[in-house]
Amino acid sequence: MTVGASPEDVARVTAQIEALGLRAHPIPGAQRVAIGITGNRESLDPVLFESLPGVLEVIPVSHPYKLVSREVKREPTVVSVGGVPVGGGHFAVFAGPCAVEDAEQTLTIARAVRAAGAHILRGGAYKPRTSPYSFQGLGRPGLEILRDVSREVGLPVVSEALDESSLELVVEFCDMVQVGARSMQNFPLLRACGKQRKPVLIKRGMAATIEELLMAAEYVLAEGNYQVVLCERGIRTFANHTRNTLDLAAVVATQRLSHLPIIVDPSHGTGKRHKVIPLARAAAAVGADGVMIEVHHRPGRALSDGSQAVLPDELAELVRQLPILLPLTGRHLAGVSPAAT
Amino acid sequence: MTVGASPEDVARVTAQIEALGLRAHPIPGAQRVAIGITGNRESLDPVLFESLPGVLEVIPVSHPYKLVSREVKREPTVVSVGGVPVGGGHFAVFAGPCAVEDAEQTLTIARAVRAAGAHILRGGAYKPRTSPYSFQGLGRPGLEILRDVSREVGLPVVSEALDESSLELVVEFCDMVQVGARSMQNFPLLRACGKQRKPVLIKRGMAATIEELLMAAEYVLAEGNYQVVLCERGIRTFANHTRNTLDLAAVVATQRLSHLPIIVDPSHGTGKRHKVIPLARAAAAVGADGVMIEVHHRPGRALSDGSQAVLPDELAELVRQLPILLPLTGRHLAGVSPAAT
Amino acid sequence: MTVGASPEDVARVTAQIEALGLRAHPIPGAQRVAIGITGNRESLDPVLFESLPGVLEVIPVSHPYKLVSREVKREPTVVSVGGVPVGGGHFAVFAGPCAVEDAEQTLTIARAVRAAGAHILRGGAYKPRTSPYSFQGLGRPGLEILRDVSREVGLPVVSEALDESSLELVVEFCDMVQVGARSMQNFPLLRACGKQRKPVLIKRGMAATIEELLMAAEYVLAEGNYQVVLCERGIRTFANHTRNTLDLAAVVATQRLSHLPIIVDPSHGTGKRHKVIPLARAAAAVGADGVMIEVHHRPGRALSDGSQAVLPDELAELVRQLPILLPLTGRHLAGVSPAAT
Amino acid sequence: MTVGASPEDVARVTAQIEALGLRAHPIPGAQRVAIGITGNRESLDPVLFESLPGVLEVIPVSHPYKLVSREVKREPTVVSVGGVPVGGGHFAVFAGPCAVEDAEQTLTIARAVRAAGAHILRGGAYKPRTSPYSFQGLGRPGLEILRDVSREVGLPVVSEALDESSLELVVEFCDMVQVGARSMQNFPLLRACGKQRKPVLIKRGMAATIEELLMAAEYVLAEGNYQVVLCERGIRTFANHTRNTLDLAAVVATQRLSHLPIIVDPSHGTGKRHKVIPLARAAAAVGADGVMIEVHHRPGRALSDGSQAVLPDELAELVRQLPILLPLTGRHLAGVSPAAT
Repeated sequence: MTVGASPEDVARVTAQIEALGLRAHPIPGAQRVAIGITGNRESLDPVLFESLPGVLEVIPVSHPYKLVSREVKREPTVVSVGGVPVGGGHFAVFAGPCAVEDAEQTLTIARAVRAAGAHILRGGAYKPRTSPYSFQGLGRPGLEILRDVSREVGLPVVSEALDESSLELVVEFCDMVQVGARSMQNFPLLRACGKQRKPVLIKRGMAATIEELLMAAEYVLAEGNYQVVLCERGIRTFANHTRNTLDLAAVVATQRLSHLPIIVDPSHGTGKRHKVIPLARAAAAVGADGVMIEVHHRPGRALSDGSQAVLPDELAELVRQLPILLPLTGRHLAGVSPAAT
Repeated sequence: MTVGASPEDVARVTAQIEALGLRAHPIPGAQRVAIGITGNRESLDPVLFESLPGVLEVIPVSHPYKLVSREVKREPTVVSVGGVPVGGGHFAVFAGPCAVEDAEQTLTIARAVRAAGAHILRGGAYKPRTSPYSFQGLGRPGLEILRDVSREVGLPVVSEALDESSLELVVEFCDMVQVGARSMQNFPLLRACGKQRKPVLIKRGMAATIEELLMAAEYVLAEGNYQVVLCERGIRTFANHTRNTLDLAAVVATQRLSHLPIIVDPSHGTGKRHKVIPLARAAAAVGADGVMIEVHHRPGRALSDGSQAVLPDELAELVRQLPILLPLTGRHLAGVSPAAT
Repeated sequence: MTVGASPEDVARVTAQIEALGLRAHPIPGAQRVAIGITGNRESLDPVLFESLPGVLEVIPVSHPYKLVSREVKREPTVVSVGGVPVGGGHFAVFAGPCAVEDAEQTLTIARAVRAAGAHILRGGAYKPRTSPYSFQGLGRPGLEILRDVSREVGLPVVSEALDESSLELVVEFCDMVQVGARSMQNFPLLRACGKQRKPVLIKRGMAATIEELLMAAEYVLAEGNYQVVLCERGIRTFANHTRNTLDLAAVVATQRLSHLPIIVDPSHGTGKRHKVIPLARAAAAVGADGVMIEVHHRPGRALSDGSQAVLPDELAELVRQLPILLPLTGRHLAGVSPAAT
Repeated sequence: MTVGASPEDVARVTAQIEALGLRAHPIPGAQRVAIGITGNRESLDPVLFESLPGVLEVIPVSHPYKLVSREVKREPTVVSVGGVPVGGGHFAVFAGPCAVEDAEQTLTIARAVRAAGAHILRGGAYKPRTSPYSFQGLGRPGLEILRDVSREVGLPVVSEALDESSLELVVEFCDMVQVGARSMQNFPLLRACGKQRKPVLIKRGMAATIEELLMAAEYVLAEGNYQVVLCERGIRTFANHTRNTLDLAAVVATQRLSHLPIIVDPSHGTGKRHKVIPLARAAAAVGADGVMIEVHHRPGRALSDGSQAVLPDELAELVRQLPILLPLTGRHLAGVSPAAT
């Protein structure tokens, strides 16, 4: 739509689309509204829309992804996670324990990551574990701890959902829902994430191409939830010096194709404590919109993934370096006015 | 347990295990019963059980997998799919369309695969598709078609479940539940599969190790359902002449570690029609317990994956070659007495 | 060229090609001669050749590979290794020790593999080893042992060359030169292999696509040596149950694109003794033109790769199964008339 | 050796090692000398050396790599390339055309990269190309151009050798020899590189583990040439948004295991022009000791790999950002005193 298009103009185009048996997706930007069209099996005649008031341009999208595409919406999307902006220049630090173990551990770590400069708390209450005999997370009580700790320290919180029933609880207690790497192609879960209104963090699957990651996000957007953040967390390769091979070029590739923010998880991406901070720095330098880092005050005693958790002091050192790194790619710490840095 | 152990002996050991707060898994074999123990965080003292009547041996299992392990149960498991035996020498041919499109297409193909010698019908009613805009399967009406066609042609039928609600329907209408490659680490789904009693087919994930495949099966067995068939269907690599790289050595590796049957899916494993039959022959030669093959009478018109579907005649030609191949690894067509071949 | 084209016809076309500053490659087949043209940067006008006597058809080749392509030569190439035919229906068993350790070991194993039914002896005198401190092979004395043993037992022999100086010696002492996986893109070595006249065995690199394998062969053919056999020996993937992931679909893919024979090396392809024979059977079932198998009479004492060597008896058992498997793909043991089987 | 060990002390230990039939490798550091021992098949008794004057410690090295190991030499090695230091805090920018096309092109680009701030010129005279019909480099005339241009603009130059004969020429005309990714396990070439005295740049193979990369360097050091720089240039994976997957964690992993410098090649590592500079920044942020970047003044007309060449202005912009990035990992531009930045 044109910059000055009125809500009535948007409504008229939307009605026209629906009259054709298709689905309209108005996506508001800072200056103008884009309207995605889905549901058409064949290409539509642009003439159907071009003459309506307020219509600037009709762009046929050739890629399999539509709503996530830069062709549909050129401006970067800024996702608000409990008030913290992610994307569009805002670089957000997500940090916290791998798993919520108990209230005390969670509060201790949450305070430490807040003091270190993190913007958003992370913590798992439903843990996807390779073995049925490993600690599977505390479930609902874990989410209650996260909500209480989140309020106590004043950080919004993200946690993973594994299926529709855990999703319902994560939506109730947290500010953002995480879809893990193993669930990236759990299509019923993605659809359900699209039907609720909390923002969604989608992690790239271990064997997923960029196109598949974008199509996973497309499932969420196609249901009407446009608040999606992507996350590169390493892919599986023959290389054995890390748990996964962190693919930082994926950040650049994704940003060219899509308006959605993308962050990097160097904790799962390397699986080795001493590699986390160097790779987090590299993520900031390549132009990511944030990092997600596992922190534990006593990594040796963590119930899950202790070998990849960094100490709060290491996180603090990283955050001190970010104001030096971020301007190189036109970014700044989330919520901080660029002028102020 | 010893060969002559009585049901009372088994019950006594089971009670002893449960008295320790652990979980007992009696797994009946052709000659003797094995009892798996799960739930222990530390190793148990063998003395606790060795003196009970009927106990032959207490084997501490060092691998992360327990119930699926050959160390727990040496004899191969024979899974019965609607009366068709799979494993333990029985080689089963699973065949049918990728997706159920309508009643007529399904019946046509089902009759053709039965005529070609298939033992079990396959067909998808819930299709995991990369794009939200692709055909997603017919859902419940598709399952009703499968049930009707299955009865009409006299072949048991397997179909994929994507989540707990589709699982419920697949269990109601089909003889076996399929957990697809993208769901191999959908742990809530695996648990739910373990809580019902239809046999389960678990496909290896695109980036899954053998250990992870076995641990996925362990989730099902740990809930008490021991009727699990594994499936190699190709892994993701740099190689671009096939859609996936079919890893036939995985069959040998899995059979050494586990008593569960393993079949091969050369349709997804190659993604190219002309490679399906040669790789199916290779699967039989390497010692797989079956193959799963997509068949379509008009591949060019298939709504999904037509480029990898073979014609009924090609399947028939394969089945004619199997009686030559199978004896090389001590196998025979499912349900056929080896002496008769 | 047409079936009845005379040597003069071929010479006339060749002269015409050379007059244009290009290179002509007459490739004789059983029934007709194909003439490959290389050296042209742009496509040539077919009219330049079509009117010459004996010319059947001018086929522009669109792929990067030319001389190795089925488009240039439809009939399969039969490579003669010291009199043993490989390809075009002839299935050859290459077997022997990984490395030549001494005369006695080599003779013992050579006699054993001959008794087991092998057609061609293999053995390394120049071993590419990851560590400079590992046994690097005996060099020239190893080749002398191979020649003597080869004559003694009456089997032709293949051995690996690493560079131009070892190539010269391998050509002197052996019947076939092997270019190993690590050398598949050693282009000076490939060119040198093309300039001599012994047949060449090229192993697929650990990270090579089929196109790259064919282009490696193209280097040899482009220098005028058309006696090339390809070898699938496993690629590097995340899968950790084998040393490499044997990609049997590569056999089918290669045979569609090229007229060159392709054999399979399940010893390096799996790296585990107990998987070698099952995968060799699978290679025969998929339609390979041969297998290459490492054999040692005392694997535990082998100086190199003992963990993947099979015993002579295991090889004998495989060779007994081959006459059952090979007719399924229209093949027969090398040198045996198909009618006789 | 102790800090104050005299040359006589070193000579005495060396003599003792050689008297045992082994090989001694004195490796001088800034403060103390380490003496590597190779050639022993079994572990040696430390007592043999501990009592000699000047010996501080005898460290049995358990890894397969010895001379390249941090256990043998703790201080980082600084390699001098025609006077430009690489490693030990010195970050070097290698830049230039993929291939030397002619004198004018090479001089134009060399002047441009010098103006942009590069320290070392790169350019290929021997190009390893997948196809025998692609431009293979100018060979010796190309090296002559490189030498002349190098003198003209005052930058040392590195070029690739493919075999022993091209190595001889590269050593004659250039300041550093490059062993390309396809040659990383060309062991005769590595040995020959160890026998001459120009520094060597070894690129990681497309399917090479870190251990294999270090062992390739070990081949060079074992022959007595300790001036080796390693290079991460991407590995082959299923990911298709880049030509290779750049593995920046490999930098951290290598630096923990080895004292050798490691640089990053984001040009081959991504294969896409727009990704080169972001990944170069990431390489600096992760702690690499340099970057190697392909530059062309008219990328669209490059004879080889034009799609990954950046413009001189893009390189200049990167070099302007480096003084901001490098201090974060205790590094500085090569040859610049850290105090001066």
